[in-house]
Amino acid sequence: MSESKRAFAVVRLADQWYVACRSTDLRRRPLARTILDEPLVLFRDGEGRPTALLDRCAHRNLPLSQGRVVDGLLECAYHGWRYGRDGACRLVPGLVGPDEDGKGRVVPSRAVCEQQGVIWVFAGTGTPRSEPFRFPHLEDARYTTVTADMRVEATLLSTLENQLDVPHTAFLHRGLFRGGARHEVTAVVRRFADRVEAEYVGEPRPSGLAGRLLAPEGGTVAHVDRFVLPSISQVEYRLGERSHLAITNALTPETEFSTRIHSVISFRLPLPGLLVRALVSPVARRIMAQDARILRLQTETVRRFGEERYVSTPIDLLGPHVWRLLKEAEAGHRETVSGEPAVEKRVQLII
Amino acid sequence: MSESKRAFAVVRLADQWYVACRSTDLRRRPLARTILDEPLVLFRDGEGRPTALLDRCAHRNLPLSQGRVVDGLLECAYHGWRYGRDGACRLVPGLVGPDEDGKGRVVPSRAVCEQQGVIWVFAGTGTPRSEPFRFPHLEDARYTTVTADMRVEATLLSTLENQLDVPHTAFLHRGLFRGGARHEVTAVVRRFADRVEAEYVGEPRPSGLAGRLLAPEGGTVAHVDRFVLPSISQVEYRLGERSHLAITNALTPETEFSTRIHSVISFRLPLPGLLVRALVSPVARRIMAQDARILRLQTETVRRFGEERYVSTPIDLLGPHVWRLLKEAEAGHRETVSGEPAVEKRVQLII
Amino acid sequence: MSESKRAFAVVRLADQWYVACRSTDLRRRPLARTILDEPLVLFRDGEGRPTALLDRCAHRNLPLSQGRVVDGLLECAYHGWRYGRDGACRLVPGLVGPDEDGKGRVVPSRAVCEQQGVIWVFAGTGTPRSEPFRFPHLEDARYTTVTADMRVEATLLSTLENQLDVPHTAFLHRGLFRGGARHEVTAVVRRFADRVEAEYVGEPRPSGLAGRLLAPEGGTVAHVDRFVLPSISQVEYRLGERSHLAITNALTPETEFSTRIHSVISFRLPLPGLLVRALVSPVARRIMAQDARILRLQTETVRRFGEERYVSTPIDLLGPHVWRLLKEAEAGHRETVSGEPAVEKRVQLII
Repeated sequence: MSESKRAFAVVRLADQWYVACRSTDLRRRPLARTILDEPLVLFRDGEGRPTALLDRCAHRNLPLSQGRVVDGLLECAYHGWRYGRDGACRLVPGLVGPDEDGKGRVVPSRAVCEQQGVIWVFAGTGTPRSEPFRFPHLEDARYTTVTADMRVEATLLSTLENQLDVPHTAFLHRGLFRGGARHEVTAVVRRFADRVEAEYVGEPRPSGLAGRLLAPEGGTVAHVDRFVLPSISQVEYRLGERSHLAITNALTPETEFSTRIHSVISFRLPLPGLLVRALVSPVARRIMAQDARILRLQTETVRRFGEERYVSTPIDLLGPHVWRLLKEAEAGHRETVSGEPAVEKRVQLII
Repeated sequence: MSESKRAFAVVRLADQWYVACRSTDLRRRPLARTILDEPLVLFRDGEGRPTALLDRCAHRNLPLSQGRVVDGLLECAYHGWRYGRDGACRLVPGLVGPDEDGKGRVVPSRAVCEQQGVIWVFAGTGTPRSEPFRFPHLEDARYTTVTADMRVEATLLSTLENQLDVPHTAFLHRGLFRGGARHEVTAVVRRFADRVEAEYVGEPRPSGLAGRLLAPEGGTVAHVDRFVLPSISQVEYRLGERSHLAITNALTPETEFSTRIHSVISFRLPLPGLLVRALVSPVARRIMAQDARILRLQTETVRRFGEERYVSTPIDLLGPHVWRLLKEAEAGHRETVSGEPAVEKRVQLII
Repeated sequence: MSESKRAFAVVRLADQWYVACRSTDLRRRPLARTILDEPLVLFRDGEGRPTALLDRCAHRNLPLSQGRVVDGLLECAYHGWRYGRDGACRLVPGLVGPDEDGKGRVVPSRAVCEQQGVIWVFAGTGTPRSEPFRFPHLEDARYTTVTADMRVEATLLSTLENQLDVPHTAFLHRGLFRGGARHEVTAVVRRFADRVEAEYVGEPRPSGLAGRLLAPEGGTVAHVDRFVLPSISQVEYRLGERSHLAITNALTPETEFSTRIHSVISFRLPLPGLLVRALVSPVARRIMAQDARILRLQTETVRRFGEERYVSTPIDLLGPHVWRLLKEAEAGHRETVSGEPAVEKRVQLII
């Protein structure tokens, strides 16, 4: 049992790609988003390319997200200054004659990448050295995919742990997901340089509706929970070749205690995708609402006491490892990437 | 005339018994209370004994008050950890095998005492060296007793002074309590090691309904106002052997500017108790509402200016003494307890 | 182009006259006002003279504005202490006998001046060395005058700049005020020791309703925008002898980000005053609402980023000069007053 005393586990991981919004959220109007406490405005330029600028006009500090897009330029609502995708001011209404030093009229911009129906922003002043994360199965025709977006009042770490934690599902979501007859299973935890995962061995089909849809004929499932730096969580269930369910969440830290979740749920099941979707959606929404409430209560208590003060047991399989990976990444350390896990251990638990 | 300049009189008196709630407030559900800024959860164990723990699960810091009581144990709403009356965790769902160090899974507990229909909590980390205060007359069959609970937005000191201050009654509550023909009276103030009281000599029956009930035939009353450390105020009126009214307030400092009041009103009067209660209750409620409003306004101004800055006159009989006793108790000083008052003086005033 | 980096331009100019309220706002009830973060209470004494005290009873710090006026004295709502126009306590109900040191029972007062239908308060602990500003044209029978009062969520500087800034009118208020066919004009900026003004040369009649009322037959107007220390802004339009419109705003800084505006709009036009008023009022209200919204958005962004960070161009004619005059006055510096401007320059702009 380990204890993390009197330490805020709040992590601030800058110079990373985070999901800003879905492609369909950004149309003709500018869109305000906050990432890592930084207010940003997103808009599409004349060719439809997404752009992210600091949400503050260089002139008199109006929020540019309150303006409009004109001819692919973002126009401030106060004096009508217009900015291009590089953040440079292209027009100052009323200004005539030589203007020696137009270079100062610029709003800082952030790198943007639109792929797989999502707009990613590189939060931070550095230069991206890699591409954003790619969601699996989206281009595989055998899979049906559903996406969902929500926001929770919780730190990045608490949200990640909640998504990857198995024990609470049998208690908090009992009846909806787990919580029927209980079984002792073995989990193998493996931590790599940029990720940590827990693989469950010999886990019976989860009870409840979700389990019956996944494996109508019962049997044991292959189940893996995974965190990938900087803010991806994955939950996968597999039953032989016929059934596969993969939930991938890309999290965006807005502020210390506010986190956005973009969920991509891909599945290949013996039943028709539309039917599965219709049956599962109401249950999934109730589960998400229960988790959102729990995270909000956790946040309120942490704020009231002015600290996180967690005690963990061996069955808190991933949370402490996620915390370690985040903290190391924040400090700029990273274990050498190799095929071998830095940590591997087996834990018994009842689920 | 004394002046207490540029000093917050906010006092924080830890390691004391304070009223948490009435016995009837604590049934099957856990109950959240804040005392001296500390969030607590109260619940009854399997034998019905009240228990107070810090309102934060040791595991992931959920507020335990959002959980439920199962088999006399308090269960957290997130993972179902269960705690006993000593704060030790008795169950971690899903955990199997040897668990080396279960001792760390504990939530701090506070001493609790249930007596006279009230649950007291010993706020602070120390050990109680005494019993909680006992309300007088509760066990005396000749008395009728009514209790009332309320909360005011004010410091402990301001609330105590308001309850023990006579001059404002003739002004703020005029028509309801005092404020008829005015009389000059003598008050004798006596401060002891743990209390201070003002005895009024030759005070005519208060005008208004309350006075007529207390002494239907008029006459002079014996009237004493008293503060007892750490947070008890008492107001007593006596007319010979037949009439006696004693109001005892036990105050609980929730936060700097929020104070709970548990009032015990005991009386023995020539009229039937139920009749007195029916006649007096609406008036008492109006008086309490007027005081609550005044205290809230005082608090708002003190916060806006960032300080208390009080000027007192000789007829502010008890407030400055209450402040001194509280401050000394906070600093750990206390005058030697003896039968003789440390201070005794006579003051003339018109009421 | 100049840049004022990482500096809050919030200015706090104490020991100045500011408008507290209109004469008609102060009748029988005391009135609460905040000026430069200081809560004040205004009331009229027995002779109807306005008085301003700190809004805090010397005794137990109740807000005196929650009391009432009795016989020309301001009475506190808690114990009934009564204060005169000098802030000295004249009555303590219940107090008898010798009271050695009544001098301490006093609430600080502020100098007050009532003129032209407005009550000015000298905010600060100093002594006024001058009279408050006098609004022009109020005593001239040829002028019709309308007044308006509002409050904006903005700093004194941002509000002044907004009122004196021409470029935004053609953009933000287009259709209402300016924004028709555009013309290049010359502005002459002159900064004096206590003021700065911009005179527009060869400006065509503004388009929109306001312009047509001002100059039904078209032509060019003489237009001057002016700031006068500490917080007066003026906008004047003249067309020969027949048409003159002068808007004078006296601003009152309540708190850092809250500013009151008392506007005096005087005009002499070829059309009847009442007709002009009926036609112009709805347009003026829409313009003011647009400006109030813009100022609120600016304030929100400045607060969110924790700083003002402005880039200016040559057509930000007056803002940077207003900032300089305010900053110099705040620091106690002031250029020698003389008839000659310290700065004079010509700027071309399109309006």
